[in-house]
Amino acid sequence: MTPDEMFMRMAIDVAKIGQAQTSPNPLVGAVVVRDGIVVGQGAHLRAGGPHAEVHALRMAGEAAQGSTIYVTLEPCNHHGRTPPCTEAILRAGVRRVVVASVDHDPRTKNLGIAHLQEAGLDVTVGVLAKEARRLNRSFFHRVDTGLPWVVYKSAMTLSGHTAADSGHSQYVTGEQARRQVQALRRCHPAIAVGIDTALADDPRLTVRDEAGSAHGILQPVRIVFDSQLRLPVGAQMLREPGKTVVFTTEQAQDNAGQKVAQLAAQGDVEIVATDQQDGHVNLRQALSHVAAAGWNSVLLEGGPTLAAACFRERLVHEVAIYVAPTLLLSGKPVLSGHATKHMREAIALHSVEVEQVGDDWRFTGLVDYPSATSE
Amino acid sequence: MTPDEMFMRMAIDVAKIGQAQTSPNPLVGAVVVRDGIVVGQGAHLRAGGPHAEVHALRMAGEAAQGSTIYVTLEPCNHHGRTPPCTEAILRAGVRRVVVASVDHDPRTKNLGIAHLQEAGLDVTVGVLAKEARRLNRSFFHRVDTGLPWVVYKSAMTLSGHTAADSGHSQYVTGEQARRQVQALRRCHPAIAVGIDTALADDPRLTVRDEAGSAHGILQPVRIVFDSQLRLPVGAQMLREPGKTVVFTTEQAQDNAGQKVAQLAAQGDVEIVATDQQDGHVNLRQALSHVAAAGWNSVLLEGGPTLAAACFRERLVHEVAIYVAPTLLLSGKPVLSGHATKHMREAIALHSVEVEQVGDDWRFTGLVDYPSATSE
Repeated sequence: MTPDEMFMRMAIDVAKIGQAQTSPNPLVGAVVVRDGIVVGQGAHLRAGGPHAEVHALRMAGEAAQGSTIYVTLEPCNHHGRTPPCTEAILRAGVRRVVVASVDHDPRTKNLGIAHLQEAGLDVTVGVLAKEARRLNRSFFHRVDTGLPWVVYKSAMTLSGHTAADSGHSQYVTGEQARRQVQALRRCHPAIAVGIDTALADDPRLTVRDEAGSAHGILQPVRIVFDSQLRLPVGAQMLREPGKTVVFTTEQAQDNAGQKVAQLAAQGDVEIVATDQQDGHVNLRQALSHVAAAGWNSVLLEGGPTLAAACFRERLVHEVAIYVAPTLLLSGKPVLSGHATKHMREAIALHSVEVEQVGDDWRFTGLVDYPSATSE
Repeated sequence: MTPDEMFMRMAIDVAKIGQAQTSPNPLVGAVVVRDGIVVGQGAHLRAGGPHAEVHALRMAGEAAQGSTIYVTLEPCNHHGRTPPCTEAILRAGVRRVVVASVDHDPRTKNLGIAHLQEAGLDVTVGVLAKEARRLNRSFFHRVDTGLPWVVYKSAMTLSGHTAADSGHSQYVTGEQARRQVQALRRCHPAIAVGIDTALADDPRLTVRDEAGSAHGILQPVRIVFDSQLRLPVGAQMLREPGKTVVFTTEQAQDNAGQKVAQLAAQGDVEIVATDQQDGHVNLRQALSHVAAAGWNSVLLEGGPTLAAACFRERLVHEVAIYVAPTLLLSGKPVLSGHATKHMREAIALHSVEVEQVGDDWRFTGLVDYPSATSE
């Protein structure tokens, strides 16, 4: 590990402090080094707040003169809610800038680097670039595609069942896995479920503390895909702190004016109508709305029909599936609703990792859609 | 590791050479040590052939005088197809006998040890007893219960599917996992499938060499559970080397005399009728027959209905489930046919191990049936 890599590693680690708080902004960390000594460090913590570079240079003060600044993402070059970081860097007298990854935001992309070079600074780009791109996978995806990065999470027995035939599902996995799911929710600005799951489990979809309380904790936005607007006014999630977005079809919205008003009266509830697609919410349209609202990623928590539909539309990018060492002699499947004919329709995962979590096992991987299907 | 444990480890390792060949006999290894030097070793290789002790003492010759013999299983004390090993040990002038596990065969249980002690030999029992019991898990199970040790093997996607909805299943797992299944078949004297699997896949159910040939290789007995005697006379497995046993119901046998004769004419085919249980083969009766025929273990390769029925009857003791890092949007389940109401009906596995096999993951575990179900 070179010194550049070592300091960039620190900047990446410090960037992670902003996890799930910075949406729609990326995670950014910065470390200021003078004569081999760290004299300042900072992370971007929330949209509208100072950028990582500003925090780090402020901490460095006079010591920033002639320093090297390590930044996980190309410094911004535009006036947004805060002034451009390139100006702050030049003003502070920094001599060298080391950047891990170029920004994808068209207002900055390569422009920040060019501006600093033109001003005579020594600029190095690409140190730990892979890690830095991974760090902001969801942000880059949203900026590049106008859709959020979607992570599908499920839990099943080793017989492939997520619940008994009756729908009973408490619990498939052990306590440690369930606690980890709480932490996973904390990593995403939004969580999504289908209406069947909302009706069957009446979930709260919150991040909770050890005492079970959801108050005083950053809550992801709750998303319900509800084509027929069946979500009960008394649903638990509507009582919980944080915002709920209900996606429905324009038709359902038109036919159920009273229900719309009732739901909207429950507090921080937004109802968004999309075109109809095979009688259901147009998932791509709905997720475009999520991206436009500035939520970089969505944790998709099922059920089987919604999840299969999202995979079919190629809207899911990553999976986290917990496998419990148990067998049910029959039960509900993980995915269902789209009849398959041939094994070549199977969607492959890459970068698969398997980790034991208590008595359960967590599979994570990135989705590789098949280039040809038999559809 | 003590010297006793070290030599017993050698005896256990040498015992494994007889894997799947010794049924209905156990696996046994023996090591003869004189003045700290191994002077003989042997393994039981096939029923009717010499026992491990005899091979080892023969190799030791004169050096057996005053030696210590390490045996993984209590030496036999009865005249079976071969004379008692206790006599061979006494005749050879062995001074000390170290035994890993007591035999469960009522003709020998504790009697072999007592005989040697009475003759004045120093006998130590229980060195690496756990490993030795594990080595002969299936033999002990058959002797204790009159039923074979049943290992359920399956392969599924990470969405819990063993095949597409069409039944297409080639292949769920990668080449390395499929090769490992060949090796797994080699470890059992019998393989079983349900008639649905036999009809859908027309499997050969053989151990094959690298060129795909099943000849010149020890073949497990093939078992088909076929309540209505639907196995086609042209089934591939009937052309393969080795024996096929078709379990059917007495009713089906009575109604299908011609089919019985046709199947029996295919070569090494045995048709065995059991009582009818809910219109199907009585599984417990069938497996009693398997045990009585001297097959210590059975590798159960599905399908979902047969497997679920076997689990329901508590006839399965161990599982090996391969999980591929792929997702099918819908497909055939691993287990099905017995509606479940509550997660507490889930059957737990213990001693679970997970190992990567090529791109796939193999879960193995022992079955813990729930003490109370909601049936």
